Amino acid sequence: MYDLAVKYGTIVTPDAAYIGNVYSKDGVIQAVTSVEVEEPALEMIDATGQYVLPGVIDTHVHSRDPGPTHKEDFFHSTQAAAAGGVTTLFEMPNTNPPVSDQKNFEKQKAHLEAQAVIDFGLWGIYLGGFNEGELERLGETGIIGFKHFWGYALNRDTYQLVYDYDPKDPNVFMPAHEGQIYSAMQTIAKTGRLLAVHAENHHLIQEETAKIKQAGGSTYEDLLQARPHLAETLTVQTGLQLAERAGVHFHVLHVSAGESVEMIRKAQQRGQRVTVETCPHYLFLSAEDYETVGPRMKIFPPVKYKSDQAKIWGGIADGTISNVCSDHAPHTREEKEGDLWSIPAGSTGVETMLPLMLNAVNEGKLSLEQVVQLLSAGPAELYEIDHQKGKIQAGLDADLVVVDMEQTCVIDENELHSKSKMSAYHGFNVQGMPVHTIAKGRVVMSNAQVTTETNGSLVSPKT
Amino acid sequence: MYDLAVKYGTIVTPDAAYIGNVYSKDGVIQAVTSVEVEEPALEMIDATGQYVLPGVIDTHVHSRDPGPTHKEDFFHSTQAAAAGGVTTLFEMPNTNPPVSDQKNFEKQKAHLEAQAVIDFGLWGIYLGGFNEGELERLGETGIIGFKHFWGYALNRDTYQLVYDYDPKDPNVFMPAHEGQIYSAMQTIAKTGRLLAVHAENHHLIQEETAKIKQAGGSTYEDLLQARPHLAETLTVQTGLQLAERAGVHFHVLHVSAGESVEMIRKAQQRGQRVTVETCPHYLFLSAEDYETVGPRMKIFPPVKYKSDQAKIWGGIADGTISNVCSDHAPHTREEKEGDLWSIPAGSTGVETMLPLMLNAVNEGKLSLEQVVQLLSAGPAELYEIDHQKGKIQAGLDADLVVVDMEQTCVIDENELHSKSKMSAYHGFNVQGMPVHTIAKGRVVMSNAQVTTETNGSLVSPKT
Amino acid sequence: MYDLAVKYGTIVTPDAAYIGNVYSKDGVIQAVTSVEVEEPALEMIDATGQYVLPGVIDTHVHSRDPGPTHKEDFFHSTQAAAAGGVTTLFEMPNTNPPVSDQKNFEKQKAHLEAQAVIDFGLWGIYLGGFNEGELERLGETGIIGFKHFWGYALNRDTYQLVYDYDPKDPNVFMPAHEGQIYSAMQTIAKTGRLLAVHAENHHLIQEETAKIKQAGGSTYEDLLQARPHLAETLTVQTGLQLAERAGVHFHVLHVSAGESVEMIRKAQQRGQRVTVETCPHYLFLSAEDYETVGPRMKIFPPVKYKSDQAKIWGGIADGTISNVCSDHAPHTREEKEGDLWSIPAGSTGVETMLPLMLNAVNEGKLSLEQVVQLLSAGPAELYEIDHQKGKIQAGLDADLVVVDMEQTCVIDENELHSKSKMSAYHGFNVQGMPVHTIAKGRVVMSNAQVTTETNGSLVSPKT
Amino acid sequence: MYDLAVKYGTIVTPDAAYIGNVYSKDGVIQAVTSVEVEEPALEMIDATGQYVLPGVIDTHVHSRDPGPTHKEDFFHSTQAAAAGGVTTLFEMPNTNPPVSDQKNFEKQKAHLEAQAVIDFGLWGIYLGGFNEGELERLGETGIIGFKHFWGYALNRDTYQLVYDYDPKDPNVFMPAHEGQIYSAMQTIAKTGRLLAVHAENHHLIQEETAKIKQAGGSTYEDLLQARPHLAETLTVQTGLQLAERAGVHFHVLHVSAGESVEMIRKAQQRGQRVTVETCPHYLFLSAEDYETVGPRMKIFPPVKYKSDQAKIWGGIADGTISNVCSDHAPHTREEKEGDLWSIPAGSTGVETMLPLMLNAVNEGKLSLEQVVQLLSAGPAELYEIDHQKGKIQAGLDADLVVVDMEQTCVIDENELHSKSKMSAYHGFNVQGMPVHTIAKGRVVMSNAQVTTETNGSLVSPKT
Ligand SMILES: [Zn+2]
Ligand SMILES: [Zn+2]
Ligand SMILES: [Zn+2]
Ligand SMILES: [Zn+2]
Ligand SMILES: [Zn+2]
Ligand SMILES: [Zn+2]
Ligand SMILES: [Zn+2]
Ligand SMILES: [Zn+2]
Repeated sequence: MYDLAVKYGTIVTPDAAYIGNVYSKDGVIQAVTSVEVEEPALEMIDATGQYVLPGVIDTHVHSRDPGPTHKEDFFHSTQAAAAGGVTTLFEMPNTNPPVSDQKNFEKQKAHLEAQAVIDFGLWGIYLGGFNEGELERLGETGIIGFKHFWGYALNRDTYQLVYDYDPKDPNVFMPAHEGQIYSAMQTIAKTGRLLAVHAENHHLIQEETAKIKQAGGSTYEDLLQARPHLAETLTVQTGLQLAERAGVHFHVLHVSAGESVEMIRKAQQRGQRVTVETCPHYLFLSAEDYETVGPRMKIFPPVKYKSDQAKIWGGIADGTISNVCSDHAPHTREEKEGDLWSIPAGSTGVETMLPLMLNAVNEGKLSLEQVVQLLSAGPAELYEIDHQKGKIQAGLDADLVVVDMEQTCVIDENELHSKSKMSAYHGFNVQGMPVHTIAKGRVVMSNAQVTTETNGSLVSPKT
Repeated sequence: MYDLAVKYGTIVTPDAAYIGNVYSKDGVIQAVTSVEVEEPALEMIDATGQYVLPGVIDTHVHSRDPGPTHKEDFFHSTQAAAAGGVTTLFEMPNTNPPVSDQKNFEKQKAHLEAQAVIDFGLWGIYLGGFNEGELERLGETGIIGFKHFWGYALNRDTYQLVYDYDPKDPNVFMPAHEGQIYSAMQTIAKTGRLLAVHAENHHLIQEETAKIKQAGGSTYEDLLQARPHLAETLTVQTGLQLAERAGVHFHVLHVSAGESVEMIRKAQQRGQRVTVETCPHYLFLSAEDYETVGPRMKIFPPVKYKSDQAKIWGGIADGTISNVCSDHAPHTREEKEGDLWSIPAGSTGVETMLPLMLNAVNEGKLSLEQVVQLLSAGPAELYEIDHQKGKIQAGLDADLVVVDMEQTCVIDENELHSKSKMSAYHGFNVQGMPVHTIAKGRVVMSNAQVTTETNGSLVSPKT
Repeated sequence: MYDLAVKYGTIVTPDAAYIGNVYSKDGVIQAVTSVEVEEPALEMIDATGQYVLPGVIDTHVHSRDPGPTHKEDFFHSTQAAAAGGVTTLFEMPNTNPPVSDQKNFEKQKAHLEAQAVIDFGLWGIYLGGFNEGELERLGETGIIGFKHFWGYALNRDTYQLVYDYDPKDPNVFMPAHEGQIYSAMQTIAKTGRLLAVHAENHHLIQEETAKIKQAGGSTYEDLLQARPHLAETLTVQTGLQLAERAGVHFHVLHVSAGESVEMIRKAQQRGQRVTVETCPHYLFLSAEDYETVGPRMKIFPPVKYKSDQAKIWGGIADGTISNVCSDHAPHTREEKEGDLWSIPAGSTGVETMLPLMLNAVNEGKLSLEQVVQLLSAGPAELYEIDHQKGKIQAGLDADLVVVDMEQTCVIDENELHSKSKMSAYHGFNVQGMPVHTIAKGRVVMSNAQVTTETNGSLVSPKT
Repeated sequence: MYDLAVKYGTIVTPDAAYIGNVYSKDGVIQAVTSVEVEEPALEMIDATGQYVLPGVIDTHVHSRDPGPTHKEDFFHSTQAAAAGGVTTLFEMPNTNPPVSDQKNFEKQKAHLEAQAVIDFGLWGIYLGGFNEGELERLGETGIIGFKHFWGYALNRDTYQLVYDYDPKDPNVFMPAHEGQIYSAMQTIAKTGRLLAVHAENHHLIQEETAKIKQAGGSTYEDLLQARPHLAETLTVQTGLQLAERAGVHFHVLHVSAGESVEMIRKAQQRGQRVTVETCPHYLFLSAEDYETVGPRMKIFPPVKYKSDQAKIWGGIADGTISNVCSDHAPHTREEKEGDLWSIPAGSTGVETMLPLMLNAVNEGKLSLEQVVQLLSAGPAELYEIDHQKGKIQAGLDADLVVVDMEQTCVIDENELHSKSKMSAYHGFNVQGMPVHTIAKGRVVMSNAQVTTETNGSLVSPKT
C-alpha cells in the first residue's frame, strides 16, 4: 500500500517528458511506472493533461527570521514557497544573529525547523575579520555554502550589514578587503563548500551615487547610473581572479549585467569552477518597465536594460547560468514608500517564480525541461543535495509539483502568502500555474490552499 | 505479471546512480522502483553489487552485408554486439548496393531484419552526383542520418568506394566537390537529418603518400606522415564552414586529431550545430603502441599521438564529444597480413568497446555516468531515438546491460563473436565486463552466452 | 650640384609629416633637410603648401603584355601609372607566355624594360603540375613572389587561364589540388618568396552559378549569390591551414569579404606569417552602387556589401591589411558590353588609386601617413624592396609624388592614359590630386602631362 | 656652416638602417644625407663602422630631487643618463613636494632646469582626495602624464608615500579607492593626458606578507610569495575595466608578470587604448639570479620567474609593449644592507639600460631597429613629444647616440655617474656601448667623459 499516487501526468526531467505514474511511501518515491501497478495507494492525484515536475528548490531566500520579522518570518515564507511549487528553500545567513559559527548554525536550525512548512538548507556567512577564524568549523556543519556580501560592513551591536558605513565609526566592522577574501577563499576551498557573493563594488557605487545625488538625480535611470554595470563586473572579475588562484568554487549570486555573464562564460570555458544564478526580475523586467512597475522593482543589484536581459537569456540558453532563484526579500508596504534613494531594495519572489517561468515556457522562451533543470535538478546538483532532491526518481524524496500549463492567473499581491503583500509583478497575466505541491509525499498545497503543518527539516549536502 | 525484473542493482543514468529495480513487460520498461512491487515477474536477474546501464547504442558499424560477407555479416555483428552489451547498432550504408535511395533502403531493412539479433538503425549515403537527386526522398525513409565519404570516388559497376581512383577511368564516379557538397547540405538540412562525414582530404593524402612511398617509407610513422593531421583538420574546417552557411547539422565521424576537437569546440561555442564522435582506438591506442600492437591497429583515420589522445580525452571531459562508437570494420586475418601500405584499414570493435570503457572507469579516466552518456543517452538524443532508447525510464524499451565492475578479462580475439577473429586489443587486460545484455526485455547475452534468436528490428528517429 | 630639389613641401612618412626639402642626384635621394643647403640644383619644384610622398608602389597590375594587348600594353599602363603618382608597379605573371620559368622571366624582363616608363617588379606564376618543377629555379630569379590562381585550369595551347574548364578536355591542364598546393608551398617556403593567391573556390562558384542561372538570375545580386562570400572564405581558410604547416609566407590578394579579414587577423594574432591586400573598389564601392555604376564594376572577386566594406576599413584601421593596390585589369569598351554573366571581370585602376585614397583622407577616413604606409612603405617592406624604394630617405631612389590636397577633379574615363578608356569611377568627384610624379629623380608627370621616355627597369627583392 | 656633423655611420630608424650623415645647427637636425654636402661643420664625429641612433628617452626615473637627495639628485641622474646614451628623461612626481598642482609643477620645473644636463619631462601625480580637484589644471601645464601609485597612502606632513599605513593614523591620507580612481580617470580623460599606474594590490600584499612573515619566511622566494603575480594582475585587470569605461588612455608601468602582458594584449586587440612598459630588470634578471645578484635586485614589483621573462619578451616581439625604461630608483649602499623584508626596493638603471639592450641585440634577442623603437621613437610617440624628439629627421632636435656594437665592457657599479654606486648588473659583461651622446647638437658624453654643463630644459607634449 502506497501513501500517494500521482497518475497519468507527463513527468518532466531535465531532458525528457513522458507520461507516467509516481508512487510514494514514507516521503520517498517508491516507483515510477508507465503502466499502473496493482498495489493501491491511500491517496491519488489525477494529473491527466498536466505536468509533474520535481519540486522547486529556491536557493536564495531572505526570510529575515530572526531579525526584522515584521517584514517576513519563516512560517510565512515557507507557506508562500509551498503556494509557489517550491518544496525546498535555502535561507540566507544575514539574520540576527547571523549564521557565522557552529553555535549560531545549530540555533538557527532549531529555530527554523519549528516553523518550516517545507524542507530548507542554511547558508553560512563570511564576514571578514569578524568570523574568519570560524570558517573551517562552520564548513563542518550542514551549511549549503558560504555567502559573502562583498563590500558591506557589519554593525558590531546590531549584527546588521551596513552599506553606507562611516570608516571611522568604532562600532563598525570594516568590510573584508581583497587580501582577506583571498585568504578566506583558500580556507573555504578546504571545506569543499562554495563561496557565493553579492557582487557590487561598494566604493564605486558610493562615489557615483554621491555625484548623481549632488546633481539632483532622482529617477530610475539615475539609480542605474549610480550603481552601474561596472560595479558588478568589477567585483565579478576580481572575484574570478582571486577564486581561480585560491582554488575555490566561486558562485555569483543574482547576476544582473549582461557583461558579467560573458565574463563567467569565458572563465567556465577555460575550465574555472565558477557558477552563476539569476532571478526572475532580471529575466522578466528591465529598466523600461519602471514607469509601470514603480518602486516595487527597486532591487539590488538593480534590474538593468533590455540588452542585459537578452544576454542573461543567452546565458540560460547555453547553460552558462546554473539556476534561477527568487532572492525573496520582502519589505512592508510602508517601507517601500518614499523617494527612490531611501526606500529599501528587495521584493517578494518565492511564490511568483514558478508561475513566471511557466508563463515563459508558454511564450516559447524556454522549454519545460529547462525549467526543471534551472529550478530543480540544477540547484540540487550544484549544492550537492541530489542524493535526496531535484529529480523524479525512485529512492528520492517525493517532492513534486503538478502544474497546469493551461491555467491562467492575474498576479495579485494581496493574495500572496508572505507577510509582505508587495510584488513587482502585481497585475501581471501569466499562463501556467502549480496546482498541487507535494513535499516529502505530503500535499502541502492544492488549488491555492496551503497547509499549516510544519514538517520541514534541514537538508544538507552529501558528504 | 511482469516478464522480467532486474533487481537490487545500481541503476546508472547520465547524471546519477541509485539502487533500484527495473520491471519490464512486452519489451518495455513498466516500472523503476526503490522498493520491490508486489506483482511478480516471470524471470528475475539479481544484480546485487552490479550496475544496471541502459543498453549501449553503437552508432558506427560496418557489417559489410550485403557485400564482402566473408569478413563479416549482420548476424555475426549483431551477435558480437549483444556479447558486448550493445542493444542497438547503426549500420553504415556503404554496402553493395549502398543505401542510396528509397528502394535500397527498403531492401536493406528487410535483408537485415531477417538476421538481426538486436535492433538497428540504418545510415543513408550521399554519393555526390550519383544520388544527389535522391536525398530528399531518402530522408523521408527511416534513416538515422546521411553519411558522406569525403573525397572517395565510386566504381559504377561494383558500387565500391574507391580511394585511389584514376580520374580518367570512365567507370569511376568522381568524388563530390565542395560545390556539390554545399548543395547537398542545403537539401539535407531540409530533411531534418544530420550529415556525418569521414573527414580526410583525399588529395593531400594522395600527394603525401606518393612522396613518402617514393622515399621508401614503410613504418607506422611514415603512414602518419602520409595521412597527416592536416588531412583531417582541413576537411573538418571546410565542412564546418559549408555546413554553417547551409544550416545543416554537421557530424564529424571518428575524430582522430586533437586539433579537430579544438576546431569543433570553437564552432560549438559560437553556436553552430556541430557534433563529433570518437572511437575506443583513439582513446586507448596511440602511435607509440604500434610496436606491440602491429598492423591490427591500421585504421583510417589513423590512430595518432599521445598528444592527440590527450586532447580527445579533453573533448570527452568537457562534453565537446557527443558519443563514442566502435567503427567496427572487420577484415580477415589473411587480409591483414602484408606490408603496411597495402593491407586494409579497419578492425573489429563492437564487442570490445564497453569492456574498454568500463576498464577506463576503473582506471579513473571517466565516470560510469559519463559512460552512460557517451554510449547510450548521448547517441539516443543525438540521433533522435530517445523516445524509445537510451535511458532506463518507464515507457522506454527494456534495453539494459548489467555490468560487473570487479570482473576481469584478458581480451582474446579468438573468442570474438564476429566472423573476423582479429582485434587490436588482443591480450589487453580489462576490469569491468557486461554480464547480461537485455534487448527489448529479452536476455540476449548472459555470462558470455549469446542468443541466436533474431528479434531485432529497425529503429527510426522520431519524426 | 644636385639634379633636382623638391622644396618647402610637407614630407610625409608612415608616422610623421614635417616641412623639408629633398635633393636628388643620379636618381638617388642625396639629402633631406629642414633648411636649404647651399649647393644648387639643376631643377627645382616648389612644393609650398603641398605634400611630398614617396612614390606609390602598385603591387597588382595586369598589363596583359604580351597577350591581349588590344586591351592594354606595358607602355600605356606605365604611363597611366606615372599619371597616377605610381613610380613602381608589379606586373602579374598570367601573360602569354606566363612567367613560369627562368627563361620566360628573362624574356619578359627584356620585353617590358623596352617600354617601361617607370620601374617595375615581376610576379612569377605557380601553375600546378605545369611548372611545379620550376619553382625553385624561378625563385632564384628576381621575381617579387609567386602568384597562384586557385582553382583555375590552364589551356595548354594558348597558355590562357581557364575558369569554366571541361575536366575531360585533353588540352586543359587541371587546376592544382590541395595536395599539390601544399607541396608547392613547401618548395616556395625554401625560396624565401611569398605565395599570393586569388582566393575563390572554383567548384562552389560553378555549382552556385549553375543554380542561379537556371533560375533565370541576371542581376548584380544574383552575381553575388553565384560567387558568395563563402567562395572566398573557404579558400582563405584552406590556404591559411596549408600555409601554416608548410611554413610559407601566405598573401591573400584583393580581399573582398569582411569575414576573410577577420580570419586573417586571427591568424596574424596567433603568429602566422600571413598578409593581405585590398583594392580601391572594395573600399569605395559596394553592391548598393551597382545601380549607378553598372557593369564597369564587375570585378572578381566581386565587390560585396556595405557590411564587408566596413570590415575591410576595420582591417585598414588596425593594420591587418598590409597594402592597397589597384588590380588594374582593363578591357575594351565593347567587351564590357553585354549581359552581366558573359562580360569580362576587371577594370582599370592604376591611375585612379591615389586620387581616390587622397580623397578619402580629405573625407577623414584615414590619414596621409596611413596612405604612405599602405601605398609605399608597406608594400616596399612586404616585398623586400625597401633597400631601394618606399620612403623618402637619403640613399633611396628619388621616387616621389607631390600632391595637392586642395585640388579637385571629376574623374573622366576618356582622359585615362590606359588603352582602355573605362573606369568604374567615371564621374566621381575627388579632392586631392598628384601634381608631379618623380621617378628616379626624373619628372615623369607634371600637371597631368606624362613623359614618353622609357627609363623604367626591373626591381628585385634584396637578397 | 653647420655646428656638428656625424658622418659615415649607419643611421638606425625604427624600421631601417642605412649609411648616412647627420648635420645639425642650433640644436636641430638640418640635413640627413647619403653623400656629403659641400657646406662644412664646426665639429665632426666620424662614426664609420658605428651606428647612429636617436638619443634614448628614459620615461621612468626617480631622481628623488627635492627629497632624499643623499640617494640621488637631478644633476647626477642626468649625468648618468648622458653617460648611458639617454638624451631625455621623464622625472617621476613623488618628490617632496610632489608634482600635485600647477604651483608645484612650476617650482619643480625651475628646480630641475637649474641642474639638468639633458632635457626632461615631468610627470604629474594623482594622489586621491589629496589633489583630485587639481587634476584639470595640472593637465594644462606641460606634464607628460599622470602617475598613480595604486594603493599607497600619503603622509600629510612629510608628503611621503606610505605603503604599510595604519588606517587609523590621522596623519595619513588614505589611498584612493576604485570609485575615486574612476572619477579621476574621467577627469584625466578630458585633459588628453594618459594615466600611468604602479599596479600592485596593496591589501593582497599586506595579507600575504603577514602570513609569510609569520611563517618565518626570509628568502627571495618568500618575497615573491608575499607579492604574488596576482597582486599585479588584479590591479591591471581592475584598471583596465575602469579605464575602458572612463575612456582614459591607461598605461601600465614596469610590467613584471607574464599574465599581465596577456591581459593587456587582449585589451589592445579589442581596441582599448592601453599601453605598457617594461624595464631591463624584467628582461635580463629572474628569480633564479637572486643567488648571484642578491639584494640589489630587490625592486618593486619584484623580478619574477623565467616563465614571466619569456612572456614579457613575447610582448616585446609582437609590439604589445610600447617602450622600455629604467625605473631608475637609487638607494645608498648602507640602505641596501639588512634583511630582505626591510631594505628598500629599487636600483639604479638609467646608465646601464642602453648597454644591456645593445648586448641583447648582439645576443640575437632583438634588432637594433627594435631598440630604436622601444627606447626612442616609441616613447616619443606615446608621450606625444615626437614633434621634437625620438627620430633622426630633419627639423627634429639633434639628440643622437653613437654606439659601437663591438665594444665590450664589464659593468662596474663604482664607475656609475649616479650618487648611488649600486647596480644589480655589477660584474655583467656586455657587448655594445654608447660612445658619444649628443643632446640638442652638443656632445654631452664622449668615450665615457660626461659634461657638467646644464643645458637641459623641459619638454612638453604637443598641444
Ligand atoms: Zn544580494
Ligand atoms: Zn539576496
Ligand atoms: Zn570512416
Ligand atoms: Zn567507418
Ligand atoms: Zn585575382
Ligand atoms: Zn588580379
Ligand atoms: Zn613603481
Ligand atoms: Zn618607479
